[in-house]
Amino acid sequence: MGQPGQVAVSQPWKYARYWLLVIGLLCFSTLSTPRLGFVRSLTSSPESEFPDLPQHCAAIPPIPASALEARRNTLAKRLHDLGAAAYIAEPSSSAAYYFNVSEEHWHLSERPLLFIVTPSVSDATGDITANVSILTPKFEAARAKLLPLSPSAYIQWAEEDDPFAVLSAALGLPTNATAYVDANARLFVADGLQRALPHARIRTPPPQIVEIRERKTDEEIAILACANEATLLAIRATHKRMRIGMRESEARDLVARALAAVGLQRAGCLTLFGENAALPHGSGTDRALHKEDFALFDCTGQLHGYWSDVTRTLALPASRIPDAHLAIWHHVHAAQALARAAIAPGALTSHPDTAARAHLAQAGYAQYFTHRLGHGIGLNVHESPYLRGVPETQATPILPGHTFSDEPGVYIERKVGVRLEDCVVVQHGAAHATFLTAGVGGAARSPWEP
Amino acid sequence: MGQPGQVAVSQPWKYARYWLLVIGLLCFSTLSTPRLGFVRSLTSSPESEFPDLPQHCAAIPPIPASALEARRNTLAKRLHDLGAAAYIAEPSSSAAYYFNVSEEHWHLSERPLLFIVTPSVSDATGDITANVSILTPKFEAARAKLLPLSPSAYIQWAEEDDPFAVLSAALGLPTNATAYVDANARLFVADGLQRALPHARIRTPPPQIVEIRERKTDEEIAILACANEATLLAIRATHKRMRIGMRESEARDLVARALAAVGLQRAGCLTLFGENAALPHGSGTDRALHKEDFALFDCTGQLHGYWSDVTRTLALPASRIPDAHLAIWHHVHAAQALARAAIAPGALTSHPDTAARAHLAQAGYAQYFTHRLGHGIGLNVHESPYLRGVPETQATPILPGHTFSDEPGVYIERKVGVRLEDCVVVQHGAAHATFLTAGVGGAARSPWEP
Repeated sequence: MGQPGQVAVSQPWKYARYWLLVIGLLCFSTLSTPRLGFVRSLTSSPESEFPDLPQHCAAIPPIPASALEARRNTLAKRLHDLGAAAYIAEPSSSAAYYFNVSEEHWHLSERPLLFIVTPSVSDATGDITANVSILTPKFEAARAKLLPLSPSAYIQWAEEDDPFAVLSAALGLPTNATAYVDANARLFVADGLQRALPHARIRTPPPQIVEIRERKTDEEIAILACANEATLLAIRATHKRMRIGMRESEARDLVARALAAVGLQRAGCLTLFGENAALPHGSGTDRALHKEDFALFDCTGQLHGYWSDVTRTLALPASRIPDAHLAIWHHVHAAQALARAAIAPGALTSHPDTAARAHLAQAGYAQYFTHRLGHGIGLNVHESPYLRGVPETQATPILPGHTFSDEPGVYIERKVGVRLEDCVVVQHGAAHATFLTAGVGGAARSPWEP
Repeated sequence: MGQPGQVAVSQPWKYARYWLLVIGLLCFSTLSTPRLGFVRSLTSSPESEFPDLPQHCAAIPPIPASALEARRNTLAKRLHDLGAAAYIAEPSSSAAYYFNVSEEHWHLSERPLLFIVTPSVSDATGDITANVSILTPKFEAARAKLLPLSPSAYIQWAEEDDPFAVLSAALGLPTNATAYVDANARLFVADGLQRALPHARIRTPPPQIVEIRERKTDEEIAILACANEATLLAIRATHKRMRIGMRESEARDLVARALAAVGLQRAGCLTLFGENAALPHGSGTDRALHKEDFALFDCTGQLHGYWSDVTRTLALPASRIPDAHLAIWHHVHAAQALARAAIAPGALTSHPDTAARAHLAQAGYAQYFTHRLGHGIGLNVHESPYLRGVPETQATPILPGHTFSDEPGVYIERKVGVRLEDCVVVQHGAAHATFLTAGVGGAARSPWEP
């Protein structure tokens, strides 16, 4: 009935074009609301949000199985030297280090699943190698056999058995044996072994054993360096996209997406604005960023099981940071550099802490640097050795292969918090440690150049 | 230009009505795709998906602070009776029981945060009450003071201190003191205390102390009963909505939404179809449900910190379960009933296991009932005491206030798995235990009436 080139529509469709517009706007607003970031993730991959942030570590290989075998053999030799019969761990970062099984692979329950190394001496050559056993609940043996490890024995305990009696019998442990149980295992494991072998010495591992995991190989350092570089790149990409007025939760979501885009697993950041950063492990109040505020990001993420840990306290181009707070930033920055210079092979673990603390004390902030300088880092974000101001008799020497965080801070409650953190590695023959973030420029240059 | 009652539209809007239809269909398909369940959750609350499943436990109150104080005073009296100086726990279910602080409140780190009870004897009355201290890292003391607990002392250890030396000095522990450390604490905690007090007896708590938490009060039983009832109601609501051909993941998501709708926290179900259920802790293959398959749901959820644990092995109206598998179901059902009758005050914890096992053995399934009969349940899904077939000399008596799972099963690898689980409570003066699901009908009646 209409003229050529026109269509007659009946009344109900009269406003179709407006409905289309309304539906379109609704869809757009749903997909672009920050609090519905997971909806956005259906329509745009994290990568496309950060074209300046490619996958940074695609070329870095994981630790090969041969390296884990070498670690176990080193462990076996140390056990033999120490006259110890066994090393025992629950699923944990130590089990990840020696056996490729973490708590993610096997959830801890009341039924012990244990990994055991006993030293085996070759009659022919005298070589000492690791003999690996897994103690498993019998009814979960099928699942235990799916773990990414081929032990020489699965020792199975039935539901009515004492698992520790089964273990000590199967291993043929002498009644006065020395056995080391990983320090993060649950107390009932050591307790059960002690009851099964009342005359044995059930102990946490001594320094000769702890040291194996503390000192990183070149393969481990390559992974740690890339993870820390990627973390810093993600913080910088986030920095470029921030604006005055955004909330802590928005910034936390933004940086989390950046960390995913750059290729890190299990990543996240403590994200604190202004005075909220004055509690070093604070959880924020989701307040908005003001012009006078620093924003603190303390970020961690995993690559092949190894962690990064990078903190930046930063400002935006539109920020107007009070001079007193800028002065704190630069003193913390100087303290971080002085500490790095003191992280030297052969120095004591207490010295770098003292170096950073002395600088901040001279600047008048002694009481505001409330935590240790740093921690070891590897398969745990925080692991031994620690850089803290203990008396020299309790400190241990810094050794090649050690990796530490270097993270001085100043925290004035209800006012301001500044922390700067890069991790470092101690190389053979170097005068002092190198930043693991060096490949992407290392430490911050200013609050505006993180 | 059109006639009255019609509107002339220009060419680009000619197909607006069809576009509307397409957009509408796209929206509908997105919102109804099972794998995008979280998108659906934006548009329909879990409650509206299950109109037959109201919040079941809204009237059940949490444990009051006065009850926690009573627990600590009971603990203090037992410590005094045992001649022990202190009870020590990390954030854990034991700390939740005595101090209202679980691992959810305070993430475990390498820096110990400990809760300590020491007995305090009144000079005037001789009454013994609990003195509570919190050992906290000094730089995290502000956060520790936010914990929902008012101790008589916050003992702070600085970063350069030995936390265990600080603790033993602050408590004034005698050098030969006996101190009990929660069995789930990490070994380095007990080890550190032992180093600080080389002549002390650092031990896991003896039965007199473990028993306090094992025996539930009426308030706890009311919470546990409602949590278990709600879990069973959610399984039944899920059962009604299942269809042949659905995948394990779809059923798992469906039952998770049902558990949320009924008001449980941290809820989820092991969801296994057909032969996948033959691995008791299997994780499934996301296979589809066939007419010949049982579906096994093993569900847990929390109410006020207390857990439920209910398993149903069920069939749909359209199912055609092989007779041999139906026979297994009925034998497991009978074993569950026989076990409940054997869970009696004064009986040994091994007897109910024996009762269930004897029935299944007589039916020819001895080798296929591969796990213990049950476990205690409370602030942990699995906690002591356990119902397992240990020799009588190792078994302990069943006491009023004990709550257990009663969960016999038959697992024939690559073929079929059947488990039926309800939790029970042992009441004062009762001849045998009562199902905690009794308020909603208790045990299953058939695979079609879960």
